Amino acid sequence: MEFTDEEKAGLYKAIHTRRDVRSYFTNKPIPSDVLARILHAAHHAPSVGFSQPWNFILVKNSGTRKAIKKSFEEEKEQTANMVEEPRRSHYMQLKLEGIMESYLNICVTYDPTRFGPFVIGRGSIPQTGVYSVCCAIQNLWLAARAEDVGVGWVSILSNNIIKKHLNLPSHVEPVAYLCLGYVDDFPTKPDLEATGWLPRLQLKDVIDYEVWNGEPNVQWSELDKTLGESEYA
Amino acid sequence: MEFTDEEKAGLYKAIHTRRDVRSYFTNKPIPSDVLARILHAAHHAPSVGFSQPWNFILVKNSGTRKAIKKSFEEEKEQTANMVEEPRRSHYMQLKLEGIMESYLNICVTYDPTRFGPFVIGRGSIPQTGVYSVCCAIQNLWLAARAEDVGVGWVSILSNNIIKKHLNLPSHVEPVAYLCLGYVDDFPTKPDLEATGWLPRLQLKDVIDYEVWNGEPNVQWSELDKTLGESEYA
Repeated sequence: MEFTDEEKAGLYKAIHTRRDVRSYFTNKPIPSDVLARILHAAHHAPSVGFSQPWNFILVKNSGTRKAIKKSFEEEKEQTANMVEEPRRSHYMQLKLEGIMESYLNICVTYDPTRFGPFVIGRGSIPQTGVYSVCCAIQNLWLAARAEDVGVGWVSILSNNIIKKHLNLPSHVEPVAYLCLGYVDDFPTKPDLEATGWLPRLQLKDVIDYEVWNGEPNVQWSELDKTLGESEYA
Repeated sequence: MEFTDEEKAGLYKAIHTRRDVRSYFTNKPIPSDVLARILHAAHHAPSVGFSQPWNFILVKNSGTRKAIKKSFEEEKEQTANMVEEPRRSHYMQLKLEGIMESYLNICVTYDPTRFGPFVIGRGSIPQTGVYSVCCAIQNLWLAARAEDVGVGWVSILSNNIIKKHLNLPSHVEPVAYLCLGYVDDFPTKPDLEATGWLPRLQLKDVIDYEVWNGEPNVQWSELDKTLGESEYA
């Protein structure tokens, strides 16, 4: 089951051209077969102890969306107090969600009771349950990109408001609130990089050897050299 | 930037043939350019507020691995007390890690101080920081699969032992301890499905409409029908 060069290139293209989309949504409906492939990809994520602890709540209802959008506005206003000028004004000007304009919203949730209480691999590090849900979200995001569907993860929200409007049982956690739709454009760079909010780190800056902050010794020198090449910088 | 059919198929192949690998590791070294592509893919994950809060600590040192393996054995023994016979014996027989046999271990960490304290989108839901790291892990996993490299996520471990042996500062959290290497085989099904530990849920079982447990109304009937087709069941 080796990959051809073009199959490999397809995966890397999805990874490197995926964007967190807040603008450019069109009204074009997502056909059922496309949405099914995207959801199927999400469901085939790894999960701790094969617990598959995710649900995908598909939301079109405009009343629900308006309530979520209101929560966004309240949380944006409140969190703006955490940052000082001139970054505060920059923050307030950024377009950070597409709740109403996107074709579809999806809330991805974590149910810790699924196949529980004993789940293999979750006893020592309970957070691995919710980590599994995040892996499913990334699968969904990449599949959507390959299908030309944009995804925006909105996290300037109150989880309590989400739980209330989606009628979540108290033991179920919302993990992500996503906006999906076809888009006119996938920008070359992330919005927050393009607008100068933060730079992309170099790959070398996030690689450590043997221990935290560990420098490459002789057995790592070839990798260190490769990571310094322009395609990875 | 549309995807060709083969590029799309490449992404879906990585998603659907990826496995959590504990066996079949070979000794073949991973070349630097392959490892660089895998790490580069991880680094191009989405992150809340573009905070890129991850580090990848590459571990070959056998002393470190032995200490981590010892922690695995202790935690496996302890967590076995959480499950009753006959599942306890089944659990104890399962091969659940490849720490020593794999070519390389990678500890992926979360640094909440990166570009902080104010990170866009993290004020209301602080967990989104660590969720970003999980997205990076899934990118790494898929890229590895396309490169024919197996990845096993070992979570039957003490995070305190990991922190101690990798010299992590107190504010940095280990998120995943991964074992990477070329493998002889990627089994068709996950180990825990093949061995009868748990079944795979049907896709329909994890899709809700408009609210938790919400049934498909008329505007969702086409999707509901599609999700019931054999390729998604």
